[in-house]
Amino acid sequence: MLSDFLSNVHLQKPTVHCITNAVTINDCANVVLACGAAAIMADDLQEVEEITTICDALVINIGMLNQTKAEAMIIAGKRANALGYPVILDPVGAGASVLRTATIQRLLHEVKFTAIRGNISEIKAVALGSGTVKGVEANMVDEVNNSNLSETLNFAQRLAEKTGAVIIITGKNDLVTDKNKSCLIYNGHAMMSRITGSGCMLTCLIGAYLAAEAKKTTPDYFSACVAAVAEMGLAGELAYTDGCGTMTFRLRMIDAISTMTAEQLEGGMRIAYL
Amino acid sequence: MLSDFLSNVHLQKPTVHCITNAVTINDCANVVLACGAAAIMADDLQEVEEITTICDALVINIGMLNQTKAEAMIIAGKRANALGYPVILDPVGAGASVLRTATIQRLLHEVKFTAIRGNISEIKAVALGSGTVKGVEANMVDEVNNSNLSETLNFAQRLAEKTGAVIIITGKNDLVTDKNKSCLIYNGHAMMSRITGSGCMLTCLIGAYLAAEAKKTTPDYFSACVAAVAEMGLAGELAYTDGCGTMTFRLRMIDAISTMTAEQLEGGMRIAYL
Amino acid sequence: MLSDFLSNVHLQKPTVHCITNAVTINDCANVVLACGAAAIMADDLQEVEEITTICDALVINIGMLNQTKAEAMIIAGKRANALGYPVILDPVGAGASVLRTATIQRLLHEVKFTAIRGNISEIKAVALGSGTVKGVEANMVDEVNNSNLSETLNFAQRLAEKTGAVIIITGKNDLVTDKNKSCLIYNGHAMMSRITGSGCMLTCLIGAYLAAEAKKTTPDYFSACVAAVAEMGLAGELAYTDGCGTMTFRLRMIDAISTMTAEQLEGGMRIAYL
Repeated sequence: MLSDFLSNVHLQKPTVHCITNAVTINDCANVVLACGAAAIMADDLQEVEEITTICDALVINIGMLNQTKAEAMIIAGKRANALGYPVILDPVGAGASVLRTATIQRLLHEVKFTAIRGNISEIKAVALGSGTVKGVEANMVDEVNNSNLSETLNFAQRLAEKTGAVIIITGKNDLVTDKNKSCLIYNGHAMMSRITGSGCMLTCLIGAYLAAEAKKTTPDYFSACVAAVAEMGLAGELAYTDGCGTMTFRLRMIDAISTMTAEQLEGGMRIAYL
Repeated sequence: MLSDFLSNVHLQKPTVHCITNAVTINDCANVVLACGAAAIMADDLQEVEEITTICDALVINIGMLNQTKAEAMIIAGKRANALGYPVILDPVGAGASVLRTATIQRLLHEVKFTAIRGNISEIKAVALGSGTVKGVEANMVDEVNNSNLSETLNFAQRLAEKTGAVIIITGKNDLVTDKNKSCLIYNGHAMMSRITGSGCMLTCLIGAYLAAEAKKTTPDYFSACVAAVAEMGLAGELAYTDGCGTMTFRLRMIDAISTMTAEQLEGGMRIAYL
Repeated sequence: MLSDFLSNVHLQKPTVHCITNAVTINDCANVVLACGAAAIMADDLQEVEEITTICDALVINIGMLNQTKAEAMIIAGKRANALGYPVILDPVGAGASVLRTATIQRLLHEVKFTAIRGNISEIKAVALGSGTVKGVEANMVDEVNNSNLSETLNFAQRLAEKTGAVIIITGKNDLVTDKNKSCLIYNGHAMMSRITGSGCMLTCLIGAYLAAEAKKTTPDYFSACVAAVAEMGLAGELAYTDGCGTMTFRLRMIDAISTMTAEQLEGGMRIAYL
């Protein structure tokens, strides 16, 4: 059962090293703690290698990027690769600046990622890899739906093949693929786009699931990603109450993660395998 | 009607580039999202010019300042000026250090601001422009009232004339002036001073209003500032419940912004034109 | 009465300069405000000396450390020492990297601390002072209990003697000692370990208490620390409701600090002098 992946997080209580941005760093740490794991946030060149070593997985989020942090990401990523730890990439705002686009390309070249999560514009910027994408693409809808599913799945599968990573495209519906297996997750709520950090938090949650999964002899990273995406979406659904404000919604969403049981997740997930 | 300025934010859904401090950056992003706009937080020298370009307005907040961030503010500010985007300054702690005082002077010299918002001590430090002001002035009351209104208005008008910016002095009552037009806003609640970030959040909210206003052929930045200040104050009033703690108050204040309708704002604002 | 130390914070309304990490900086500022004090967060080399000067105490937290911030800590710490202001150290993750371990040693060598607060692993890393401690010690239980009380107290007293600081070891129970006087505080709730920042917030709360205490002719820093630790623990107890999520818990904990009266604290503290 997919909810076993949540039970495994509760059992393993892994620690996730997050190199991330100042905007959502507190929410990210709290989501990792809420799901039963632990988090260490450290981004300095001099210590990231040691910090990665004592953790179980590494999350790299390029929000509020700068050159020094990019160097730290490379060092930590290589260390995680050497140790066989899962490495998860969140290409926040990929395509919005030369710095971000170039850093993504360098990261993809020097670090092997276990999973990459972004919205459709960000994942497209990652896949295209050139500096030609600027900001949010006007011609991309931030939604995977029937009319673009085949095209989107195709490009996600190619990126999965190229990088060896599970690709997760989030939006109204969420697409997860590792090239061979693919699914759509229907959980989630529109309010998640009215707060900052829904994406960053999900990437860290995926980090916790993969950190726990890596403890198994034959880890199934694809399914662990699917379970994490479903938990986040379900938490969003549980958080919403009629007419609630955005901060009440955020509070209740993280609360829902902190009290989520395997049974609750199993009963609430809405997934279609493709 | 002043509430039309809120409706315009809802309609335009502009994006605000915020260069701000780590203390309140999450609240700032969430307030911008709550009012119906979008926010990008980026402060690195290498990417701010590109980020400003894809947004609709720029907010510069000098909290937790350092020299590198000051350079990024200058670059982004010049870019916003070149594109005709509104630029809003929050001189957090102006006068508290030579770095902040000198940076403010340099910013005023190199960047044209559309609006400047601070408490009376900060705005006085901006206006005096020397390093002689240290921290919170003991002889300044953080409140615009009948006994100091004429003097305060006079100095705010001179600063508006000198800078070409709308000047917003917040405290118990809030004063807004563009030299020709001036008003006092009575909305607000004392609890706003018991949480961190009320000022920073308001400056970002003003950023959202001015970003939307700039889309009009003849923008009225003065009135847009008045409407934003009134919305923040009204949200504070709506947030308070008898005996509530400070975090419940903050949550409810941002919630109120996220659910505020034009009708609610129109009915709740308390403004006296001078 | 110990609650007089809270009343003194309410009376003095001191300002605390915090050099801290981006993860919990917002919570820290809000806790300081909630208890009736004020906070300035500033960590740049060029301004920390001036900022420390206009405050009443300095808190140094080494989370998310980097070399530049370490230099700023030294400068601010020396300034606080020269002015006779209390300086409080939070050795977050001490032992987890060479950078943190070496910075702690340099800080202890160049700055005199009034109080040092950490969990048992961190305080042991501070006391041992070598690079041999890596991350969370597997052989240390993060709890002061009957079986290890004598040993823990002994090592804390030696560190108090060596540094001249009040040593505060927090965990399930909290130990406070200044070498001559020692006590255990039983307040607190297990949920405090399921959110990020409980420790950081407590250290800043201690900063507020010591800042107020320093205004007295014969300050009693030991008792002020005990009262601060008891207030934080009691706030945690008051915050918990059956089945509540982690974010509701955090909100209610800071709310409890913001509404705590001296009577409430006096009635709720559970302390055993050793």
